[in-house]
Amino acid sequence: MNFEKLVDRLGSIDYSNLYHEDFFHTWDKTQEEIEAVFLVADSLRYLREQNISTKIFDSGLGISLFRDNSTRTRFSFSSACNMLGLEIQDLDEGKSQIAHGETVKETSNMISFMADVIGIRDDMYIGKGYTYMKDVSSYVKEGYDDGVLEQRPTIVNLQCDIDHPTQTMADMLHIIHEFGGAENLKGKKIAMTWAYSPSYGKPLSVPQGIIGLMTRFGMDVVLAHPEGYEVMLEVEEIAKKNAEKYGGKFTKTNSMEEAFKDADIVYPKSWAPFAAMEKRTELYGDGKFDEIDVLEQELLEQNASHKDWACTEELMKTTKDGKALYLHCLPADITGLSCEDGEVDESVFDRYRVPLYKEASFKPYIIAAMIFLQKMKNAEEALKELKEEAKPRLKK
Amino acid sequence: MNFEKLVDRLGSIDYSNLYHEDFFHTWDKTQEEIEAVFLVADSLRYLREQNISTKIFDSGLGISLFRDNSTRTRFSFSSACNMLGLEIQDLDEGKSQIAHGETVKETSNMISFMADVIGIRDDMYIGKGYTYMKDVSSYVKEGYDDGVLEQRPTIVNLQCDIDHPTQTMADMLHIIHEFGGAENLKGKKIAMTWAYSPSYGKPLSVPQGIIGLMTRFGMDVVLAHPEGYEVMLEVEEIAKKNAEKYGGKFTKTNSMEEAFKDADIVYPKSWAPFAAMEKRTELYGDGKFDEIDVLEQELLEQNASHKDWACTEELMKTTKDGKALYLHCLPADITGLSCEDGEVDESVFDRYRVPLYKEASFKPYIIAAMIFLQKMKNAEEALKELKEEAKPRLKK
Amino acid sequence: MNFEKLVDRLGSIDYSNLYHEDFFHTWDKTQEEIEAVFLVADSLRYLREQNISTKIFDSGLGISLFRDNSTRTRFSFSSACNMLGLEIQDLDEGKSQIAHGETVKETSNMISFMADVIGIRDDMYIGKGYTYMKDVSSYVKEGYDDGVLEQRPTIVNLQCDIDHPTQTMADMLHIIHEFGGAENLKGKKIAMTWAYSPSYGKPLSVPQGIIGLMTRFGMDVVLAHPEGYEVMLEVEEIAKKNAEKYGGKFTKTNSMEEAFKDADIVYPKSWAPFAAMEKRTELYGDGKFDEIDVLEQELLEQNASHKDWACTEELMKTTKDGKALYLHCLPADITGLSCEDGEVDESVFDRYRVPLYKEASFKPYIIAAMIFLQKMKNAEEALKELKEEAKPRLKK
Repeated sequence: MNFEKLVDRLGSIDYSNLYHEDFFHTWDKTQEEIEAVFLVADSLRYLREQNISTKIFDSGLGISLFRDNSTRTRFSFSSACNMLGLEIQDLDEGKSQIAHGETVKETSNMISFMADVIGIRDDMYIGKGYTYMKDVSSYVKEGYDDGVLEQRPTIVNLQCDIDHPTQTMADMLHIIHEFGGAENLKGKKIAMTWAYSPSYGKPLSVPQGIIGLMTRFGMDVVLAHPEGYEVMLEVEEIAKKNAEKYGGKFTKTNSMEEAFKDADIVYPKSWAPFAAMEKRTELYGDGKFDEIDVLEQELLEQNASHKDWACTEELMKTTKDGKALYLHCLPADITGLSCEDGEVDESVFDRYRVPLYKEASFKPYIIAAMIFLQKMKNAEEALKELKEEAKPRLKK
Repeated sequence: MNFEKLVDRLGSIDYSNLYHEDFFHTWDKTQEEIEAVFLVADSLRYLREQNISTKIFDSGLGISLFRDNSTRTRFSFSSACNMLGLEIQDLDEGKSQIAHGETVKETSNMISFMADVIGIRDDMYIGKGYTYMKDVSSYVKEGYDDGVLEQRPTIVNLQCDIDHPTQTMADMLHIIHEFGGAENLKGKKIAMTWAYSPSYGKPLSVPQGIIGLMTRFGMDVVLAHPEGYEVMLEVEEIAKKNAEKYGGKFTKTNSMEEAFKDADIVYPKSWAPFAAMEKRTELYGDGKFDEIDVLEQELLEQNASHKDWACTEELMKTTKDGKALYLHCLPADITGLSCEDGEVDESVFDRYRVPLYKEASFKPYIIAAMIFLQKMKNAEEALKELKEEAKPRLKK
Repeated sequence: MNFEKLVDRLGSIDYSNLYHEDFFHTWDKTQEEIEAVFLVADSLRYLREQNISTKIFDSGLGISLFRDNSTRTRFSFSSACNMLGLEIQDLDEGKSQIAHGETVKETSNMISFMADVIGIRDDMYIGKGYTYMKDVSSYVKEGYDDGVLEQRPTIVNLQCDIDHPTQTMADMLHIIHEFGGAENLKGKKIAMTWAYSPSYGKPLSVPQGIIGLMTRFGMDVVLAHPEGYEVMLEVEEIAKKNAEKYGGKFTKTNSMEEAFKDADIVYPKSWAPFAAMEKRTELYGDGKFDEIDVLEQELLEQNASHKDWACTEELMKTTKDGKALYLHCLPADITGLSCEDGEVDESVFDRYRVPLYKEASFKPYIIAAMIFLQKMKNAEEALKELKEEAKPRLKK
């Protein structure tokens, strides 16, 4: 779609509830709201490619609140803020600390006097990350209502224990571009499958986010994992309902082969079992660090018994025409390169390197689009004006 | 006061000596200079509330030089710089290091090639922090005079061992707003009192800054603490002279009850005894770390014998109409919440949460106003122009 | 030269190959390209001194990728980015880690979605730093060609194992200003000499960069060091060829006295022997950390036998009129101040403090000029426009 079509389409749908609201989970949003994010992301990318300034802020802060290390999400958030005119201010809290109510309330307000948006990544403990984000949101809303804050900073979920909307929407926009439009996804099979990794305890937010989002596009979504690697039941429920509502399918299997068979898209990726993560959070809360070590050891052993769950060349051949689109949120554990046995064969990974990087390249635009729609009541007008003003990003 | 009145008043007073000067202690400044900071702070806040850009810099750096950890002061300084158009660049020196002349001279110049302002926090060692700030100031002045630096970066004291002007002026502006104008403060009783905290060695800059500033407004300032918790004598002298000059009172007591009695404003807060802090600095300079540990232990025990110094509901009832304005620089040690015994009852703190957050919200504007007045020769004209240009902060 | 002359001269030379290219080593560039950097640096400085905005970017990121600690280079790069309108985003990788191909390729792309320039400092291991920079460059070029990146970030070498172009060009611009023009340097003697320092393993990039650059100006360049402190042979070859081509001299000596005799400029500075650094890199690669410790001990002892290599008052008296221009990249090891025996007498250092700071003050402008020329096809037009627009940097 060209810029005019993107903006016209945006003008014809209802995204009004994104305005002044947070972005937590994709399933909180309507179909048109999800589409609006894609339309704005593509529009912003177009403007930037044309060397047209996309700044809507003259000044203001974007707060990055990361409760886990991250290079790529940090840079994506920075990039998104920068292109809109916000300066980044980092708040790095130790990842070992699960903050409590009063402290969070105070800190949330103290960092927000000039904050327009707060990007939060908190994926370490089941039942904690999303709760934390909602707390921050309610505290700054309170601060705004009480006249403490001049503006209400909105929240962008940069990964919680449940969903990872900026990742999965970047994945989806990549798919849309690869397949030439969302209208072409009906009936396409996507295999979200577990894969073996020598590292322990990867978050569940990606598989959960994927089944929660992709089932909205009429796709045939298959979730595959060994027994014991179940994801959160409530997200499976969401996936089921979406499939029904939007005319797609959601199925589960314990066979990677079955999932890959004739798949149009594959997303093989390691994650930790939900039940184990829940137990870990509990042990952590009780300060039982010895038992956490034991649990980690058990999980590594459990993982090791599933080394055959790998995205090999053989398996890739069984996909649609042997050419399924391979997805990953990166970094991947690559067999023979980053580890002895990993999620994917080096030759497979290599063949998809450019598409994988493109997949990642949508994330800054997705984040920027979320912020844009949180701040601009009339987004299509704002985009049109940017194009008309045509202020060069880099002086010509 | 509305914007026009703020700016008119600013035009009628003499703040010319703030231009191209540092802001170290409130008592270095005239009454009109202090008022100018309040007027500009309120004006900048008004503009921001109206979504009008307050940027006076097109580019330039604000250096934050923190010799102690800090979240809220860091964010306040960042916010102030951002709203004026300066980008933050952090210089984090280890807090354990008391830097010496040559190194400070070189570093001060090396970080200042594009620096318009340097915000310094150095409150750890008595006799060191303010000295350090003055050194940095003289070195960059020299660098500017020698043609090394294109502009002379001015200093904003973000807390030293003696004063904490951005905090106390934020406190004061909060009071002014709560009482409907500085003219209503005459004769009002403010109790700056010590309170018990389980943590050790809190800086004296807040109580010192408060008695040094509040005595300029004709208030009845009472400093209360247990025996042995004396503050710096030279600041007490300043408070006395201010009280005489400006028609107020400055008294001392060893009774928290006496201080709270009929008080209009209370500021109960822990601090370390000046004499002990002096000894600590000495021991530190001599590298006697064992003796520092012993000293800390002694001080904690000394503290513990004054657990009755707490801002309780009972004590609050004895204040004017039982409704004194409760102040704190945050974070407070809250009894039963952040510690077993602390500075304040949870129910008292809770009742004042919104005013406390508002109190804190003035700090970014106070800092921005200090920078504004250091850089704008004709501040009232600059403010008027910003309002007339009315460049939207966030695109409409 | 005034601004008009700078820009006119720029318009008359060919710097077109700087556009969209990296800046690795000075010897990769033509004489006119080197001159262009100086002309733009002086022009940008002039504009800034006139309070005229030098921003050519409306938004965009400058990535600082430091594989070693650094305060002054970090601030120089930040300053350069800020004055052009780029926001800094730091990527701090541990300095102990020699990254491998795949990871570098992925990371390079992941940080570059909105990156216009990447400043890299990687000087720790012989044979690694420059290689790393070239890798990053080729990976982001690939990313740009593949449509992953919207713009191709160019690289500025902020110090590698071979050259330190931003330092030596700042040194050179300082010399040009001190001697009243590059045309006055013909036949001037510059002594790049080793000097004793109690610290171990300083990079060779400065002496190498100096002999590689200064030999292009018809100067009499003398490299002096004790036996065993040889620099890279390939850079000596470059120096020789330059001397021939540009009508100067390049000689070597093992006598500091000989080098200083009648010198117009002296640059006494410690560095590690190339052979030892090569061995160290090897040991490091093999994980032989015990042997590294042994090597370091040996090198410290070797150093200690050359404590007489110091820039003393006596030695300074033997230079041209006893008044050679003293250069250093800072920080220097100052005898009796920062160490017992060091590179330079305190009284010598003190006498040259202001020129030394001025020398350093050129670095942000050199970096900014490199970026400017990488991004502006018609740099003289861009400079003229900035001057005509005359947007105030600080509101008047």
